[in-house]
Amino acid sequence: MSGIADTPKPPYYAVIFSSLQSNDLEGYAETAARMLELAAEQPGFLGVESCREQLGITVSYWSDLDSIRRWKSNAEHLQAQQNGRRRWYTNYKTRIARVERDYDMP
Amino acid sequence: MSGIADTPKPPYYAVIFSSLQSNDLEGYAETAARMLELAAEQPGFLGVESCREQLGITVSYWSDLDSIRRWKSNAEHLQAQQNGRRRWYTNYKTRIARVERDYDMP
Repeated sequence: MSGIADTPKPPYYAVIFSSLQSNDLEGYAETAARMLELAAEQPGFLGVESCREQLGITVSYWSDLDSIRRWKSNAEHLQAQQNGRRRWYTNYKTRIARVERDYDMP
Repeated sequence: MSGIADTPKPPYYAVIFSSLQSNDLEGYAETAARMLELAAEQPGFLGVESCREQLGITVSYWSDLDSIRRWKSNAEHLQAQQNGRRRWYTNYKTRIARVERDYDMP
């Protein structure tokens, strides 16, 4: 999870989740780890990249929009999203984007 | 630069730059700061988000693909890219994506 995701040739989709954390992080680390594990089991999941300083950015990659919709409505993920809104984040933004091209280091 | 970018309604474009640094970071911090400053002056620039742990992720947002192409070929930016390839990064990947939808924290 600390590396660059080995995604296939475009097109595919990216979910860019940018967030600022609150001071109430009880249960956050366990849930974040579980969500990474659970996401990786979902159909259409291609990879994930994540880092945090003050701002956290998690980019997950998916083969298609239906896979993203299913993941968004996964029951365990819905519970995590609710905890995120109620406790762990002071602000966040989610962007759904279609990756059209990519370039590796030459 | 430590916050969530205040981007307009989609569609717009995201450049997702994911990188792993080398141990030779001489000149890196100054150049990174300068590139953020210079990017923000470019036509079509909408905002940027960035963080780094082991992996670094910088997502810059742009109004259209032409603006991204112009920024990619900016002379001072080309020099920075070359230093990145030769010295500062052991690996990176750049993805160009069209943001189709976004969601704020309710």
